[in-house]
This record gives sequence, structure tokens and C-alpha cells, in this order.
Amino acid sequence: MSSSAERDFVHAHLDDLHADLDAWLRIPSISADPAHADDVAASAEWLAAALRRVGFPTVEVWPTPGAPAVFAEWPSADAGAPTALVYGHHDVQPVDPPELWTHPAFEPTLVEGPDGPELHARGACDDKGNIAFHLLAIRAHLAATGRDTPAVTVKLLVEGEEESGSPHFADLLTAQADRLRCDVVVVSDTGMAAPDTPSVVTAMRGLADAEITLRGPAVDLHSGSFGGAVPNPLHALATLLAGLHDAEGRVTLPGFYDRVRPLTDRERDLMGRVPFDEAAWLAGPAASRVATGETGYSTLERVGARPTAEVNGMWGGYSGPGHKTIVPAEAHAKITFRLVADQVPADLGDQVRAWVAAHLPEGIEADVHVPAGGVSPCASDLDHPAMDVLLGSIARAFDTTPDRVLFTREGGSGPEADLADVLGAPLLFLGAGLPTDRIHSPDERVLLPMLYRCAEATAHLWRDLAAVPFPAR
Amino acid sequence: MSSSAERDFVHAHLDDLHADLDAWLRIPSISADPAHADDVAASAEWLAAALRRVGFPTVEVWPTPGAPAVFAEWPSADAGAPTALVYGHHDVQPVDPPELWTHPAFEPTLVEGPDGPELHARGACDDKGNIAFHLLAIRAHLAATGRDTPAVTVKLLVEGEEESGSPHFADLLTAQADRLRCDVVVVSDTGMAAPDTPSVVTAMRGLADAEITLRGPAVDLHSGSFGGAVPNPLHALATLLAGLHDAEGRVTLPGFYDRVRPLTDRERDLMGRVPFDEAAWLAGPAASRVATGETGYSTLERVGARPTAEVNGMWGGYSGPGHKTIVPAEAHAKITFRLVADQVPADLGDQVRAWVAAHLPEGIEADVHVPAGGVSPCASDLDHPAMDVLLGSIARAFDTTPDRVLFTREGGSGPEADLADVLGAPLLFLGAGLPTDRIHSPDERVLLPMLYRCAEATAHLWRDLAAVPFPAR
Repeated sequence: MSSSAERDFVHAHLDDLHADLDAWLRIPSISADPAHADDVAASAEWLAAALRRVGFPTVEVWPTPGAPAVFAEWPSADAGAPTALVYGHHDVQPVDPPELWTHPAFEPTLVEGPDGPELHARGACDDKGNIAFHLLAIRAHLAATGRDTPAVTVKLLVEGEEESGSPHFADLLTAQADRLRCDVVVVSDTGMAAPDTPSVVTAMRGLADAEITLRGPAVDLHSGSFGGAVPNPLHALATLLAGLHDAEGRVTLPGFYDRVRPLTDRERDLMGRVPFDEAAWLAGPAASRVATGETGYSTLERVGARPTAEVNGMWGGYSGPGHKTIVPAEAHAKITFRLVADQVPADLGDQVRAWVAAHLPEGIEADVHVPAGGVSPCASDLDHPAMDVLLGSIARAFDTTPDRVLFTREGGSGPEADLADVLGAPLLFLGAGLPTDRIHSPDERVLLPMLYRCAEATAHLWRDLAAVPFPAR
Repeated sequence: MSSSAERDFVHAHLDDLHADLDAWLRIPSISADPAHADDVAASAEWLAAALRRVGFPTVEVWPTPGAPAVFAEWPSADAGAPTALVYGHHDVQPVDPPELWTHPAFEPTLVEGPDGPELHARGACDDKGNIAFHLLAIRAHLAATGRDTPAVTVKLLVEGEEESGSPHFADLLTAQADRLRCDVVVVSDTGMAAPDTPSVVTAMRGLADAEITLRGPAVDLHSGSFGGAVPNPLHALATLLAGLHDAEGRVTLPGFYDRVRPLTDRERDLMGRVPFDEAAWLAGPAASRVATGETGYSTLERVGARPTAEVNGMWGGYSGPGHKTIVPAEAHAKITFRLVADQVPADLGDQVRAWVAAHLPEGIEADVHVPAGGVSPCASDLDHPAMDVLLGSIARAFDTTPDRVLFTREGGSGPEADLADVLGAPLLFLGAGLPTDRIHSPDERVLLPMLYRCAEATAHLWRDLAAVPFPAR
């Protein structure tokens, strides 16, 4: 066990972390539910007050057309000190169905688990826990180093709409780009591979979505009079979607893989070192006897490092009781694509349209809607000197060496690419979540020792990032 | 122009037919709408009164658990005279959408059309027009032959739930089999190929339906965490349904064609003589640029004489606004099969289950529901001596020769097979409808000269059927 002043401070002040979490988690800041708009606002005000209490000299609640974000800044007094911007969110997922919760979702409850004390509540991990440890971390950094100001300028931007798709986030970034200027972004909204397996996320996937409508007859037709002799859009849709993947599980859109950066041997080696119990993973919510997917890739690579196409919804014709003997006029499907570097969401429109056009049977018309926007994939630069500092900070907090901190990939998508793009800064991921934390599900929890370790790691990070030679801005 | 006493009587009493139709069509006997239950009952009572007025000595309204049927019988005084049972229905389709009607659906309106006077109203053709001509036909038969009773015993069974799937019809037939005993069934619920093309329907298709549910994950999964690595039931359903037909347009259920009686050269020759403007047919409600279907068969054969499989509905996952990034837990489809002689609806359960089992990807569970029952296909015997009498009767009414009366097939399905099966009698089809009559649609109409000719044909039929040597019962 290596010790440090940072760790000592953290462990001497755990009650503060517990008290902060208990108060904040009682605020049901569900951004998707308009009935909770006041709670989301209260959550922002709670965080702003907590940041002021900790000592941040600048704390502001930034309104948006939706839910408010919280901004804070604690400048370093050191000339030329770099700036780090922490990203996270203070809104939470809905609790439905409440009856599946062992303890009420907004009454934080301590549960002694096999890996240590767990705190159960909606938002305990995603994402209030990940922000709460920063309140303790900067105090530990200052106390351990005897400084009045942090070694790097620390900014926080904690939005209130992440669980609703961050609809106003890119605009906020653009409007406030000057205030948010930074040398590195520290994303605290992810996690690690396992309690005893410190790791950093190195990439998140992007997202694009398409809605396809196929039209056949002008009206629903009597199947006794027309069936078997005119094109049925449901048959056409089934055939189209059956061809979305080839026999190797690859997506068949023309050009889909053109910009995909191949996984390097090093990346595959790094992913292969992450402990992963596939049987346990399949036995979880998937409840599946088998893993499927793209030939030649592991399950972790498929869900984290390779692009995918998933039909999320399909409908058309009659779905009521009994039967209705029709050839329906229309058929519909919703598809989302997960993208990896260097795919561009804006390319998907042409790809989907070309794919549909190439496979449309005669007599069927197609309407393809691919919304502008989408989410770009994002990735950390494994060779950036700031990455070495992050690995070192985590290694110290987990009593290990930097080479034993593993690299993982996040299969989901978020506004992190916007941060990197708008602010022009590299991304580091430092989060306390675990795959077993049941985020978005009943009985969400956080493993408290993960918060303690991330608070310590952050304190090390603020100290050591100061020495990184970031390029001049 | 051949003349006859039957035609003279019909043309001398057209006002009676017009008055009957005007009164009956004003009763909105929509069986599918419980709010119109009283109207359906009033329609039955109207018909019963009309049959008594015409002279039927026995007229009864038969209640069912649903809407009432009307039964009438006029025995022939001739010893050993055969018995004919007329089948039809007095209920009608809903009118939705009422704003698409040129004239109110239940205010019968005379319109002078290119082929003669048309009567526009819901039910004008389907099926009140087809029953109303029988009221005049039996009077013409008696007057022309100078008889007090018909040459054959004439029975009518006019049900009130045909547009609701005849849910209580088979039970009614079984319960009243003694009263309904007959040597031949005359179905008056179909039509002819064109105003100048007298024809008889020789077959109707059967029907079986199946609902398929595919299950994948235990719950809807986050597609960023699981997509591309576990089986997606929507992908499985699309692949399954894409294989419902082979490249030749044939249905791929194992054994599906085993009992299909091949079309004979004579049947195909007879169908080929029916005038059919495929371009006009496609340009109608189908609004299709192309005809599709089973290789080696004409469009008329595909919709009338060959079995088909049609996906009527398909659904699963998310269909709301925007996107929802899930791998859904379930996917569903509804399929109906049109059957031809000698297919058996009860065979479809095993066929569908075997087909699904053979094509189910690993990790997907299937639940196949094939309701008991279904509708059997039915057909006339082209070589039955009663068929010659029918052709001769129609030929006289249309001023042509029996060899110029064409044979058509009805692609839809109805309770006619139950009549043939329960009563053990051959089927003849005599109806005044036309493909252009817009039954089930706004502006339904009947071409009045078709009713006049069918009334005359029926009068000839009652006279000449007496000479047919039906087997002893």
C-alpha cells in the first residue's frame, strides 16, 4: 500500500463526501420528465452552492432553453499553468418501474456489498457520484500540496440534459467557448472495468439514426383481392432489413467502413487484457444463450470498438387483436448506427439512401429520413503526455503501476465529441462507474471505495498535469 | 334480343325492385358497430316482411348470439321437386370515411353512368342488391310459368354478420341443418367480370392466420452496450419474413403446396378467357406500377386460383418520435394465408411452426399462434348438371349462349365452404356485383341492369333446376 497526503486527506474527510451525496441524491433531477423541471433546477443550485463552499471563486448557473448547467472555475495562480475542464451532468434517468427498487430511488441507502460499501440511489453512479468526488478531490489536492490555488486551472461544466440527449449542449459550448477554453477535458461520466481493475476509457462511439418508410398501395388493400399480386411493403421491408448485415455480420451500407480506422495490434492487445466474463455478461439483462456479431472480433470489440447497425423499431399494417386481411400501404423502420473513428455521422444519409435505393423492389417507394447532426465518435490520444499523467494518477490511487491500468472502450455515445471539437482539447476519461452499477436501471448504486480512489486520483492529476507541456493556445 | 315471359315480368315490375332497395338501403345495418345493433335487427325485420309480402309461406328471424339471420321457405307443390337454398347477408360494411362519399351512404341515389343507371349506397351491391333481386325473381318465375308454388322448393338464409366474419354462422348451420336441408346452394354475394361479360364464380379461397412472436433479450437493451453482440429479434423477424417466399414467389412453408389441386388446362383456359385490363386494375386502389407474384401464373390466377401468404402486420421496438437506442426484447408479425382446394386450414399450424423452427437463429425464442378454425376453400363442380342450368339461365338473361358465360374465381374467403360442408350440397354462385362497384369503399354502387338480368336469370334457374337429377338425399 502506497500512501500519500492526498489519500490521507480523502480518507479523513469521507463524511463530507457521504453527506454531499446524501443531500444531492435526494433531489429527483429527472430531466426527461417536465414535472421534475424544478428539481433539475434545484439540483443545479445545490451543486453551485457546494462548489462555492469548497472554495471555487467563480460559480455560475447557466440557463439553457432546457435545463440549466453549472459552471465553475478555480484559476491557478501559477503563470502558464494549463487548464483542465471537468465534464459531467447533474440530471438523472427516470426511476420506472419504481416497484423494482429495493430501496426508494431518492432515499440514498448504504448497503454492505461483497466489494465494500455501496450507496444505492438513482444517480449514485450516473452521474452525481462522479461529480461529487471532484468536490473532495480539489480540497485534497490543495491540502496535500499546501497550495491556495490549484496547480492547474480547474473548470467544471456540469450539464442538466445529458439523460435527455443533451439537446442544447453544443449550442452552449459554442456560445461559451471563451469561458470554457481549456487544454484538456476530463470526462467524469464513465467508469472502470472492475473494482480491482483500474482502467481508463479511451473512446466513445458516435451515433447516427435513420427512419425508413416504404410505400406500396395507395391504401390498405383487401388481401383476398390483391395479395400475392402487388408488392407488399412489409415484405419489402423485411427483405431490406434482412440484408442490413452480410453473412459475416458486417453492415452492408456502401462505404460504411471506408473511414473506419482499423484497430491496431496494440489497441486489440490492450482490449484483450481487460477481464471480461462473457458468460456472466450474456446471463445479465441480455439473457442470451449466444453472442453474435461481426466475424473476427471479440464481444468487447464488437460493443466498444467496431461500428454497428441496429434496428430499434419496425412497424406497419395491423397489430390489433385477431387478424385483418390487408396488404398494408406502408412499412416503417428505425435504425441507429454506432460509429467509430474516423466515421462521420453526416456521411450516413447518403449511405442509407444509396443502400435503400439499391435494394428496393420495383413498385415500392422509399422515404429515407436521416436527421442532420448525430453524434461523432471520440477518442483519447493514447500517446498524449497527459495520458501518462492520468495513468500514473490512477495507478497511485489503486496501488499499482501505470502499465497495469487497462484501456477500455465505451460503446455508448455522448456529447464528448462536441467538447473535443468545439474546445479543441484532448479528452481524458476518469470515472468511478462499474459495469455492475445498474445505471439507468432499478437499484442503481455506486461502490463507495471507487469514489474514494477517483477522488485521490483526481488530486494527483491536478498536481501532475501542471507539468504537461500542452501546446500554446 | 331473346324475349321471355320472365324478362317481361321483371321489366314490368322494376319499380317494386327500386322501392324495395330504397327502403332497405336506408337502414344502416353495420354489423361491426355495436351502436348499429338495432339497425341490423331492423334490417332483418324489413327483409322478413318483404319476403312475406312476396308470398313466402314460412319466414322466420333467427336470433344468434350476435346479429339475427332471416330464413324463408317456399315449398314446391311438385312431388320430388329439388330444394335450392339462397345464401346472402343483410348487414353492411362501415362507411368510414363518410366525407369521401359523393352522396350520403344511407340515402340511396340514382346516378346515370356509362353502363346505365347506377344506385349509390352502402350495401347497394354487397349484399342487399343481390338479395333484393330474389324478391322479384320468384314472382317472375311464378307469373311466367303460371304456377302457385315454385318449380323447386326455394329457401333463403340471409345472415347478419358476414361483414363481421360470420362468427356464429357455422353454429347456426349445424343447429338448423334440418330446416336448411337442400340439394343445391345458390350463393348470391359475388358478381360478374363486367357488365357485358356474364360469368359465374367457381371457387372461393380459404383462409388461415398466424401470429409470430420472437423473443430476444429479457428486456429492451441499451444498443450502445449490447448492440451488435446479442441477437436482435427485429433482425431475426426481418430475416424470417424475407424468406417467406422463394425467388419464384412461392410460399416456403414445408408442405404448403402438398394438397394444392393443380389447375387443369381447362381451368386455366377458362380463366384466360375472362377479360382483364391489368393496367387499369393496377392503377386502381393498388396504385402500383408493377404486378408481382408467383412465377408461371397470371395475375388473375395469382389472386383467384393460387394460394398466397401475406404479412398483414409487423411490429416491435420503438416507433415514437426521434430515436431510442435499444435492442428490443420482442418482435411480432401477423400473417394470413389464402388457401385453395384441397388445402386444409388445420394443416397450417404445423406448417408455420416447422417453418419458424427451421429458420430461427440461435438465441431467439419463437411463439407461434395459429388459431383453430380458419376458412376452408370451396369450389363449384363445373361438371355438375346444375351448373349447365345456371349457365343457361344466365345466358338467356344476357342474350348470349351458355358457352359464352365465363368462369371466374373469387380470391376472398367467406362462409360458403361451411354451407357446402354442413349441408352437403353443391355450390352455385349467382351475383350481380362488378369489380368496379367499390364494395367496402366510399361510393359503393350497383349497376341496376345487372340486378334486372340476375332477377331474370334466377327466374329461369328456378324453372329449369326442377329437371336436374339431384342424387337422392
